[in-house]
Amino acid sequence: MDLKKMLANERVKSYLLKARYGIEKESHRVDLSGNLAKTDHPTSITLKDDHPYIQRDFSETQLEFITPVMETVEDLFHYLAAIHDVAYRSMDENEMLWPLSMPPQLPKKEEDIAIAKLKNVGNYKYRQALSQSYGRRKQMVSGIHFNFEFGEELLQALFSLQSEIKDYQQFKAEIYLKVTRNYLHNRWFITYFYGASPISEKNFFEYHSLDKAVRSIRGSKYGYVNADEVKVSYSSIQSYLSDLSLMVKRGLLSEEKEFYAPIRLRGGHHFSDLKDHGVQYIELRNIDLNPFETYGISYTQIEFLHLFLLYLLWKDEEYGDDWGKMGDLNNEIVALEHPLARTQFEREAKKMIDEMENLVEILDVTVSDTVFVHLREMLMNPNKTLAGRLYLESEKSSQSQVATSIAKQNQKKSRDKPYQLAGFTDMELSTQILMFDAIQQGIQVEILDRQDQFLKLKLKDHVEYVKNGNMTSKDNYVSTLIMENKTVTKKILHQHGFRVPKGEEFQTIDQALRSYHLFSTKPFVVKPKTTNYGLGISIFKDGANYEDYQKALKLAFKEDSSVLIEEFINGTEYRFFVLEDKVYAVLLRIPANVKGDGNHSIEELVMQKNRDPLRGKDHRTPLEKIQLGELENLMLKGQGYGMDSIPQEGEIIYLRENSNISTGGDSIDVTDQIPEDYKKIAVDAVSALGVKICGIDLIIENTEVPADHENAYGIIEANFNPSMYMHIYPYKGESRRLTMHIIHYLFPELLQSQESKSVKRVVKDGFTTVGC
Amino acid sequence: MDLKKMLANERVKSYLLKARYGIEKESHRVDLSGNLAKTDHPTSITLKDDHPYIQRDFSETQLEFITPVMETVEDLFHYLAAIHDVAYRSMDENEMLWPLSMPPQLPKKEEDIAIAKLKNVGNYKYRQALSQSYGRRKQMVSGIHFNFEFGEELLQALFSLQSEIKDYQQFKAEIYLKVTRNYLHNRWFITYFYGASPISEKNFFEYHSLDKAVRSIRGSKYGYVNADEVKVSYSSIQSYLSDLSLMVKRGLLSEEKEFYAPIRLRGGHHFSDLKDHGVQYIELRNIDLNPFETYGISYTQIEFLHLFLLYLLWKDEEYGDDWGKMGDLNNEIVALEHPLARTQFEREAKKMIDEMENLVEILDVTVSDTVFVHLREMLMNPNKTLAGRLYLESEKSSQSQVATSIAKQNQKKSRDKPYQLAGFTDMELSTQILMFDAIQQGIQVEILDRQDQFLKLKLKDHVEYVKNGNMTSKDNYVSTLIMENKTVTKKILHQHGFRVPKGEEFQTIDQALRSYHLFSTKPFVVKPKTTNYGLGISIFKDGANYEDYQKALKLAFKEDSSVLIEEFINGTEYRFFVLEDKVYAVLLRIPANVKGDGNHSIEELVMQKNRDPLRGKDHRTPLEKIQLGELENLMLKGQGYGMDSIPQEGEIIYLRENSNISTGGDSIDVTDQIPEDYKKIAVDAVSALGVKICGIDLIIENTEVPADHENAYGIIEANFNPSMYMHIYPYKGESRRLTMHIIHYLFPELLQSQESKSVKRVVKDGFTTVGC
Repeated sequence: MDLKKMLANERVKSYLLKARYGIEKESHRVDLSGNLAKTDHPTSITLKDDHPYIQRDFSETQLEFITPVMETVEDLFHYLAAIHDVAYRSMDENEMLWPLSMPPQLPKKEEDIAIAKLKNVGNYKYRQALSQSYGRRKQMVSGIHFNFEFGEELLQALFSLQSEIKDYQQFKAEIYLKVTRNYLHNRWFITYFYGASPISEKNFFEYHSLDKAVRSIRGSKYGYVNADEVKVSYSSIQSYLSDLSLMVKRGLLSEEKEFYAPIRLRGGHHFSDLKDHGVQYIELRNIDLNPFETYGISYTQIEFLHLFLLYLLWKDEEYGDDWGKMGDLNNEIVALEHPLARTQFEREAKKMIDEMENLVEILDVTVSDTVFVHLREMLMNPNKTLAGRLYLESEKSSQSQVATSIAKQNQKKSRDKPYQLAGFTDMELSTQILMFDAIQQGIQVEILDRQDQFLKLKLKDHVEYVKNGNMTSKDNYVSTLIMENKTVTKKILHQHGFRVPKGEEFQTIDQALRSYHLFSTKPFVVKPKTTNYGLGISIFKDGANYEDYQKALKLAFKEDSSVLIEEFINGTEYRFFVLEDKVYAVLLRIPANVKGDGNHSIEELVMQKNRDPLRGKDHRTPLEKIQLGELENLMLKGQGYGMDSIPQEGEIIYLRENSNISTGGDSIDVTDQIPEDYKKIAVDAVSALGVKICGIDLIIENTEVPADHENAYGIIEANFNPSMYMHIYPYKGESRRLTMHIIHYLFPELLQSQESKSVKRVVKDGFTTVGC
Repeated sequence: MDLKKMLANERVKSYLLKARYGIEKESHRVDLSGNLAKTDHPTSITLKDDHPYIQRDFSETQLEFITPVMETVEDLFHYLAAIHDVAYRSMDENEMLWPLSMPPQLPKKEEDIAIAKLKNVGNYKYRQALSQSYGRRKQMVSGIHFNFEFGEELLQALFSLQSEIKDYQQFKAEIYLKVTRNYLHNRWFITYFYGASPISEKNFFEYHSLDKAVRSIRGSKYGYVNADEVKVSYSSIQSYLSDLSLMVKRGLLSEEKEFYAPIRLRGGHHFSDLKDHGVQYIELRNIDLNPFETYGISYTQIEFLHLFLLYLLWKDEEYGDDWGKMGDLNNEIVALEHPLARTQFEREAKKMIDEMENLVEILDVTVSDTVFVHLREMLMNPNKTLAGRLYLESEKSSQSQVATSIAKQNQKKSRDKPYQLAGFTDMELSTQILMFDAIQQGIQVEILDRQDQFLKLKLKDHVEYVKNGNMTSKDNYVSTLIMENKTVTKKILHQHGFRVPKGEEFQTIDQALRSYHLFSTKPFVVKPKTTNYGLGISIFKDGANYEDYQKALKLAFKEDSSVLIEEFINGTEYRFFVLEDKVYAVLLRIPANVKGDGNHSIEELVMQKNRDPLRGKDHRTPLEKIQLGELENLMLKGQGYGMDSIPQEGEIIYLRENSNISTGGDSIDVTDQIPEDYKKIAVDAVSALGVKICGIDLIIENTEVPADHENAYGIIEANFNPSMYMHIYPYKGESRRLTMHIIHYLFPELLQSQESKSVKRVVKDGFTTVGC
């Protein structure tokens, strides 16, 4: 079959760039000086061996990050970023991730390298066997495994264009075998551009060390390779499989997964899947960590790899296993070239770049403008390759210092905005924090709809869907509809004996005007029935004259076709976050304000307060910057101030009437200060509404007066999608990790396993000290 | 205390017309000739004695309608209307309600009057005792009991204006006692205007009959009154209660509730409540059925009664029980006056009307303009009183014929639009039908928010909230959010192995344009992500050129910021209504169409088809009228027709591309025609979404092909608030009473009690034939 022709076929073209990607990336935990961490794997990350995103590889310090399979490179990076964020913030704050493939300085004694303290005895024993075969030092090398699958539509379109092979699975196998063979032959190309392990740190080589810098120690024979006798044929799946079995039978490999080829054929998660399901994807294993990228690999690299694999599918090959052997030899040459030397395969490399560029035109695929410019630049100037750059940088101080400094930058970036989850910062804050917690707890997170904050969470066979952080299967539909309707909420609470502001609902201004006399002399509020954020609300603390009443109605009817006029209840408003019959947080919200120091103007004080990294704009941060707009100026004017007035020391100046966080208000956690009887009111009211997750607003005149006193409190509103981040990152007071409570509510089995964790941990400790 | 002054106080004025109202109304079931029905109480109305809305009074034919307590007269009438509708449509279609207080012709033998066949032995025995004391004939008289309570704010405002009485309960008692005494004294006023039982039918009087027509037989000594010896003081609650106890002790009354005063002091549902809770309201019992009103009483009558009671509270009284006794005498005179004679109390009546009119001015309350005009008119011309009108009408034929004809009109009105519930016709059809079923089943229905279709349903202590007919506590929140999001729905169904149209979501036109090649040659649909009613949807059954593709995208992006492009699945679309893992209905929707007869033009055929009473406008009817607008004309033009074309006999002409009922489509029930395997697909898909109540749309190419064949079906959409009325009133095919299934799903205890009903009925039958 003529793949060159087939790939250029119109029916195929639209699918050429459709693919699925996955990344596994290893990194060591180090302390702030760049030495291997002496601590155990972070306990905040669920300690199971089979954590879907963050596992331990060979040693206790060696984290392995695993992305889910993604259909776009963008999505792949989102997960890679998020997993890094979770790892960084789950680790001790004095630890960071070593950004190089070559490990930092190792202990002198090999046995001081701690094998990962896994629960599963088999997993632990496998690592012990590896240390015996290869030595622990070599196992400390880290890298990236890049999993790649051609799009199903592409493969099926290609399949339909030929008639030689009748079986689709066999056809797929042939496709991947061709790419694999060509990859083996041409992988020196990758090593030249992206090899990034020029020198080793202390104690990596036990007896002798390399006498010069190279492009990639990891990609050379000094890296992590099988014994020379391990040889496998790639001419067909059958021979590939039978050769591997033979290697195991002969004792050259302890099991099939010990086969450390630079590229592997994969049928699924387990080796046996290849036999059962045929080739599903390939795994490129010879990618060094890119030290200059926060996540160890760049977007352009992946784009290049995809294009390169397409090119290898297109490119003619010479059959026979020599083709692969030649590749090994060529790669060894390139890997051991000096990082600043021009490669001896420059001509071949140039030709391949030309061919790839030509292919892009023939196939009419879209790639970044700079891909080929960049490749040619690196080819002509080895200083620009990864190995070249790292080597040059290290010359100025040392490779270890360079690596430590990069690690610090990466760590700082992740810790600077702890409320964000990298890769998903466009999503709602509460959803970002919930995703963080889910990933940390080893729950698989799938984004069903990003704009809509719609998640699928999965722990083993247990699936939960979550929207906007706390809209879940635990609440029933009609209860949320009750909360959405203020009139209905009040009626039901009233029927259950709770105090709610008395009021009436009106559909027309005229109707409301006729009822003026019912309210005129009392404290009351005019508000639209369903809108939020305080729009269209007027408060009259001492009644109102007819004109003001009329104005307030007009404002409210602008926002909604139904307007409520309610008794105004005096006191302080508290937000109670209730989850499954328990109050987990109580928050006091205070209108935007500054505190005078007798020195600075109000404008300056606002600017000072706004410097808090928790304050930002448009709900991208837990608090909002205080504005100095029309409303704030009016409010100041009402108090006899201007922006340039200088308040006295300790004087509090309010810039807003309303206490919403969204208009610069302060959030203060008062969970521990609110008496139990008021918490019980909140819990009982939420229960009367039949709700499990609720933010309920109580006005309390004096928390020291018992809640059962007449008019001690009034319930203003119940919210079915209460903000969580404002409790997690309050302006003052204790943080309440509500997202984690939501996770535990949805997946109670996590708590059960944690309750028995102490027992299990004893077992584990015993296991490691016995050292069997 | 000076009530005249207190009532005119500014603090009181705003509350003067605040009150609570309730009505109990008796009516006999009669056949179409106006004879007492020989059938038992309708079994479709729950047969419990304590049905909240529809009970039996003394005899098996005597229905008693009970409204809940309402705060406005409008609301009172809504319930009164609805309860009548439920009764009418629960009765045999050959039965109707007798509109007069005096019963229709009675059986010759008194024992042929069937006492109500109640389950409760005590209730049955009480009626037996009554027949012995008063005779069954008198118990057959029907009327209205009007329950009235002054607004709490009014009473409290009045209470605060005086200092004589310190106890609020005692104050309330004094208020109601004054009104009661004045009512007893002045009730002849009511009898004159609204007395409406001028003559009796055959066999009402056993031995002698009245020799002339009067104003109110029921209001006179010939009505339903206690023995002369029964005398009770109204000077205080204490004496009222002790007198009543005395009457019972002396055997003059079998129990307190046998006290048939024209007005009663009430403390609650039971007599004992009066002792325990004090006076809460008063019950006016001397209101004859108004034959000219569908519900036995008019809005103006209630408005008048309210004003009259306020007037009685204001009006000075002379103390002493003679005041009441004089009232009895005066009332007897007026009740027995000829219906066309001017009353001998004309002067007093005129004075009272003047005083009432004056009071309205003093108190500044709003009443209908015509109230006093109408009263004066009736006073001057007895022909205009109810008794006068009925008597005059009856002169033309007979009172029985007049009553029969009125009954027929009322019955027809209720049966003409069976899909509506009178009193609530502004609500959604499905909600109206659900309320009908709930009322019929004896479930208390409270409207929490009328605009929002928000109901509270209550059966004993079991409360369920329902919005829009089927948004309930049974569904979980996130499942409904899943259904609201088409992309998420599809992803989840796909992950569970169901066939859904493949597709992609786009946020910008440019993005979508770049993917043109992915769809260009296939059948596909362009649609906005969240809008409904078919707006912005374009279908390309054979692919599309770039221009049409671009146009379709523009249309769709007009409706939503996200647009889906989906594979078009060929076949017929069916709506499956799934409830708790069972398919209860399958509907086929066909685009608006007419069938030619070789004679009439398309326009004429449309007009003919639109005459169906099920067709209307704006979702007020189960089907919509076919329009002949721009789209329909275009569609005709596309087929080479115009509005005046005459299709051949049997030819079907489609006027729309889309099959929505809202654009004149036909609904055809095919529940019994759809094979089980497709029903299982629907049930399993709904279950995969975690939903209990769902309308799921399947496209099936050929229902005779098994559902597990490749591409046998495709799932288009799942709807979380599926229309029910279209299944209940389909254009063709069997009606599926989904609302009743919802009721039974929410209240499974109803089915349990119905299962055991057959047993209970045997008991009941045995009980009545034994006749103990």
